[in-house]
Amino acid sequence: MKEKVSCIYLIPVTLGDCELEKVLPSYNLEIIRSLEYFVVENLRSARRFLKKCDRSIVIDDLNFAELNEHTRREQVDALLKPAEEGHDIGVISEAGCPAVADPGADLVAVAQRKGFKVVPLVGPSSILMSLMGSGFNGQNFAFNGYLPVDREARLAKMHEMERRIRHESQTQIFIETPYRNNRLIAEMAKSLPASLLLCVASDITGGRESIISRPLSWWAKASYDYDKIPSIFLLYKQ
Amino acid sequence: MKEKVSCIYLIPVTLGDCELEKVLPSYNLEIIRSLEYFVVENLRSARRFLKKCDRSIVIDDLNFAELNEHTRREQVDALLKPAEEGHDIGVISEAGCPAVADPGADLVAVAQRKGFKVVPLVGPSSILMSLMGSGFNGQNFAFNGYLPVDREARLAKMHEMERRIRHESQTQIFIETPYRNNRLIAEMAKSLPASLLLCVASDITGGRESIISRPLSWWAKASYDYDKIPSIFLLYKQ
Repeated sequence: MKEKVSCIYLIPVTLGDCELEKVLPSYNLEIIRSLEYFVVENLRSARRFLKKCDRSIVIDDLNFAELNEHTRREQVDALLKPAEEGHDIGVISEAGCPAVADPGADLVAVAQRKGFKVVPLVGPSSILMSLMGSGFNGQNFAFNGYLPVDREARLAKMHEMERRIRHESQTQIFIETPYRNNRLIAEMAKSLPASLLLCVASDITGGRESIISRPLSWWAKASYDYDKIPSIFLLYKQ
Repeated sequence: MKEKVSCIYLIPVTLGDCELEKVLPSYNLEIIRSLEYFVVENLRSARRFLKKCDRSIVIDDLNFAELNEHTRREQVDALLKPAEEGHDIGVISEAGCPAVADPGADLVAVAQRKGFKVVPLVGPSSILMSLMGSGFNGQNFAFNGYLPVDREARLAKMHEMERRIRHESQTQIFIETPYRNNRLIAEMAKSLPASLLLCVASDITGGRESIISRPLSWWAKASYDYDKIPSIFLLYKQ
């Protein structure tokens, strides 16, 4: 048996085009500089990120494997081969924190089964930061991912979320395809009680960051344009 | 009306005794240096944190107000007075990220109502980091806070979490008073199906950090001692 257990480092990246120093601890760069093996969601953007971290990094000396929505379950095991040979691996996704609302979770599950040491690093998460900024219940909350596209399933989901807000005091967090953001807000203002609070958190850590919590009655009359701006939505009661 | 809207900065601190560079972006220090007004969960530890950020900060030149479990709802408004006078305010809690599982959320709710700009900064969150490291579903998860103390309510809660794992594929995250950590693991191993996966994430960002996901059948036979070590628990299915 090897003495040292290989580490799988989960390396957050910026959300959109933002200075690294704004959202990443300098320790992350130390770890990055120590690694030769990476599993990345997108080769091109991972290389760009590493180059931004440290111009002196020689990308061609590093080893990359891709993990994304096209990767089949049975291929995931093979991505950990360098770890079995004693190398640490860095996992980098397209935006934010690997393995949260992101394909990295499958790789981490296999790494856990194989007994490697999994080490998450600190970085920006729109889920967590929007919750902090919303003023909603942070003792009990759920992230629901994308709402269903089908109209009926979508309404059912909204009402289930409303029920959990009322009966469990659980903040409900969810996302939408960016070009449908405006439509979603209008839909909620129409289908849910006017007194319910909606927080729209958009362009988190970016130059146009805005986190606004108001009753749905306010959103029903407000003028806004969140289409194409990465946004995250939270619902809670007054 | 004032031209500049006051900002309420939510400033994360370390989880336990850890180097700042390991978990905080350098940008946070820039913001801290620009502030004269702070609302803090604990005066003593907030002062110590600021001094650790920058030895040259003159603590006596700064203004502190306390916000904790003893603060009454009607006192929260007054804490924002400096913001009404045009000053930015920094919010600092005992550990981790303000307003998530923490009294800061009440202050943020008032700040939102009054129309101040709320700006969360990046920092360590045991909830998010344990989820990243668990390998469990990061597309759908719930944080439940503390489990009930009462035996019957506690079992009911465990079974409700199991139901949501099975039917909604929702990862369940929760915490326990540290001196009861071992007992909680034994209880789950006894009361829940052996095939369910339990992740115990302890001392996140600390020197003894460990994140281990295994079936409850494994935990039933394992030897461990998490008592007094800050830990967070996650349940999911295989």
